[in-house]
Amino acid sequence: MRFKDGHLLGLEYVDREDIDLILKTAASFREVLERPIKKVPTLQGKTVVNLFFENSTRTRISFELAEKRLSADSVNFSSSTSSVKKGETLLDTARNIEAMKIDMVVIRHQSPGAPNFLAENLDANIINAGDGAHEHPTQALLDMMTILEKHETIDGLRVAIIGDISHSRVALSNIHGLLKMGAKVTLCGPATLIPREIEKLGVDVCYHIDDVLSSVDVINVLRIQLERQEGGLFPSLREYHNYFGITKARLDKLAKPITIMHPGPINRGVEISSDVADSEHSLILNQVTNGVAIRMAVLYLLAGGENINA
Amino acid sequence: MRFKDGHLLGLEYVDREDIDLILKTAASFREVLERPIKKVPTLQGKTVVNLFFENSTRTRISFELAEKRLSADSVNFSSSTSSVKKGETLLDTARNIEAMKIDMVVIRHQSPGAPNFLAENLDANIINAGDGAHEHPTQALLDMMTILEKHETIDGLRVAIIGDISHSRVALSNIHGLLKMGAKVTLCGPATLIPREIEKLGVDVCYHIDDVLSSVDVINVLRIQLERQEGGLFPSLREYHNYFGITKARLDKLAKPITIMHPGPINRGVEISSDVADSEHSLILNQVTNGVAIRMAVLYLLAGGENINA
Amino acid sequence: MRFKDGHLLGLEYVDREDIDLILKTAASFREVLERPIKKVPTLQGKTVVNLFFENSTRTRISFELAEKRLSADSVNFSSSTSSVKKGETLLDTARNIEAMKIDMVVIRHQSPGAPNFLAENLDANIINAGDGAHEHPTQALLDMMTILEKHETIDGLRVAIIGDISHSRVALSNIHGLLKMGAKVTLCGPATLIPREIEKLGVDVCYHIDDVLSSVDVINVLRIQLERQEGGLFPSLREYHNYFGITKARLDKLAKPITIMHPGPINRGVEISSDVADSEHSLILNQVTNGVAIRMAVLYLLAGGENINA
Repeated sequence: MRFKDGHLLGLEYVDREDIDLILKTAASFREVLERPIKKVPTLQGKTVVNLFFENSTRTRISFELAEKRLSADSVNFSSSTSSVKKGETLLDTARNIEAMKIDMVVIRHQSPGAPNFLAENLDANIINAGDGAHEHPTQALLDMMTILEKHETIDGLRVAIIGDISHSRVALSNIHGLLKMGAKVTLCGPATLIPREIEKLGVDVCYHIDDVLSSVDVINVLRIQLERQEGGLFPSLREYHNYFGITKARLDKLAKPITIMHPGPINRGVEISSDVADSEHSLILNQVTNGVAIRMAVLYLLAGGENINA
Repeated sequence: MRFKDGHLLGLEYVDREDIDLILKTAASFREVLERPIKKVPTLQGKTVVNLFFENSTRTRISFELAEKRLSADSVNFSSSTSSVKKGETLLDTARNIEAMKIDMVVIRHQSPGAPNFLAENLDANIINAGDGAHEHPTQALLDMMTILEKHETIDGLRVAIIGDISHSRVALSNIHGLLKMGAKVTLCGPATLIPREIEKLGVDVCYHIDDVLSSVDVINVLRIQLERQEGGLFPSLREYHNYFGITKARLDKLAKPITIMHPGPINRGVEISSDVADSEHSLILNQVTNGVAIRMAVLYLLAGGENINA
Repeated sequence: MRFKDGHLLGLEYVDREDIDLILKTAASFREVLERPIKKVPTLQGKTVVNLFFENSTRTRISFELAEKRLSADSVNFSSSTSSVKKGETLLDTARNIEAMKIDMVVIRHQSPGAPNFLAENLDANIINAGDGAHEHPTQALLDMMTILEKHETIDGLRVAIIGDISHSRVALSNIHGLLKMGAKVTLCGPATLIPREIEKLGVDVCYHIDDVLSSVDVINVLRIQLERQEGGLFPSLREYHNYFGITKARLDKLAKPITIMHPGPINRGVEISSDVADSEHSLILNQVTNGVAIRMAVLYLLAGGENINA
């Protein structure tokens, strides 16, 4: 199901031309965010439901702000207080919400493919805000938008994604998006946290962080979920930090500075040290700002908005 | 306390003329919901508080959408995070909220009569969104609005309400509303779940589902609360399904098709089978759409809106 | 950090002239609240985040209504469902939210000084909605606004604050505010609940409630937190009521009526009896109404609003 069909389910289904369009549209909305009045009437009278089956204040607020700044009406649905508890199926929940005549559904769900399932069964536009370990397309779009603040083009750029690749929807969406835009992508992390045969997607895998750092332009450092350690996938946070943590000492050894990104929330002193997270080469807070602009662009384009750069 | 006094506490207190007015006004708002811009400025500058002492995503979102589409400002209050926990009385909570100069209160409360109590003590318009096993008037209004999609008039129509009548505010509101509009109402369910002497309200009771199905035009199938089984009120869900479940086999035996409704969320395979719920004679999703229109109409009329059909 | 610097962190940092300006501006907004359309376009296009690390429906709704009536966009963040649980620092949470280009942060936090910390590190305007046992400045402002409904000036007025002074941010903000406005402040409560050497702030302390009542114009009765009893700070609620409860019997002995206030939620029959709470001299519900007006005034002025009384 492509972006042109009215949904954003994953970057796997979006072609390079549409990614370009989203990034350019987001750049226009980024300017709106710098104005004293950060609001445009574009989606007035439209209703967007934020259907969150997993808690995520950060992503939910980012979408909610994007919706409000486009003048849409937002309604929040969180599974913790819903009839989902009463045993209702996802499809019945979604059909009920659609029957209330909403225009767009932003969904976060623990099951990979849940947004695709809704797109096949509902008329509303569906936006995937994270489905299990599958995709988180607006995150990858905001990551690419942020890269373009420091680098002229993604084509030919060398980008490493570092950490728990296996459990990361951020990683998978970035892989799809970056490869489509022409980047060279390297994955790095403990062997237990990198899927076998992932090279078939067209990426390189390297288990030595210093080799990776010395050969890329940009790194995207993933959050280490503390609960993975309990599963025995790496021995300890300290060990993880020693082998894969991004520290000033590691970066100082490099011939030239590289761009640092992280989807947040960061574990200071685990996957990234505080001085690196707060350094001039870190674009972590720019990512957050760009996230609102990307979500405004996606909502705008799915609602039928024209190419405002044309 | 009648609808004319500025509250919707239960259909027991609303006369036929006012039910007609609400249904006609809702039909106008139903058209608004089909427009690309589903919003009218009717309640601009008015504030509605959704005061939910019981969780109900579905009803809360339906009211919230109705409020937003009338351009009212909505504020949500849920008891799970409130000073109710600190031992405050319902009246003190409500008086405090009213002192913030709100115009309308939508209340769901586990105690029958809680909305009446507020109506006696506050100046704001009170709308009952469900009070214990007492009334749920907007549900019965949306049920009647939905019946009118398939049937020209409710007067003389034969309607059965099937399931757990004893614990159902949906049943009681439907009984009051349908009788006022001239329907012939039959109740059907396990004897343990039908109140003694309910015939005094003017309804029939029948314990044999097939007899009921063959003699009515419309059925409203209630949700079986799974927790009732633990109370020993019926032996098992399978047994319930065998004796009272609405199945294709049962309906196929009828001389003519009947209209199927259910207030949701449905237990597929318990009180209703999946094929029936999804069949062409099922109006379950129409009920959801009409729910928003009914709530818009009630808010509009209580706020002093004129008869827009006149 | 003064009010002029763009924050409201505590009345300790606000000078008398600014308190006067806030009270006068609030009086204008109080009139807006009496209109049929309670909304002004003042903050259109501005975004306010309500960042509540402690539950408080009452204060959160009051701020939310103030924001909506100024036409700002409101987003609610509550720590119970947030990445705070994932171990993120307060500063990282706040910086992330600021990076989404919000204009103002209303913060309630269990740690004294949390709002000051944010003010030093963010560009957004910060409003303290209660920080531990430190300050709750909008509460003290609304208390003073309410006093002015019955008394011409605060200058020279005799005001007693009664109850658990030690754990009360309401008490401390009132002390700072009232002293700046020229009131004579007396504290009264069990010795275990009044901080040693608090007289150094410029207040009197008296342990005999009847002596206090006979010598003041206004009393502000604090809520007794039921959990203090478990800590052994007073023997029982009945004992507390006997020694410090404000009852009709106590007030009837006075030569003239005094003004009664309470920040709510009230414990009827503990710190205040029902007949006193509901009497003509009680301004408890006026406080709630004025709370919305005060919060509108503070948001308006911090957003750069001009003196609308000039």
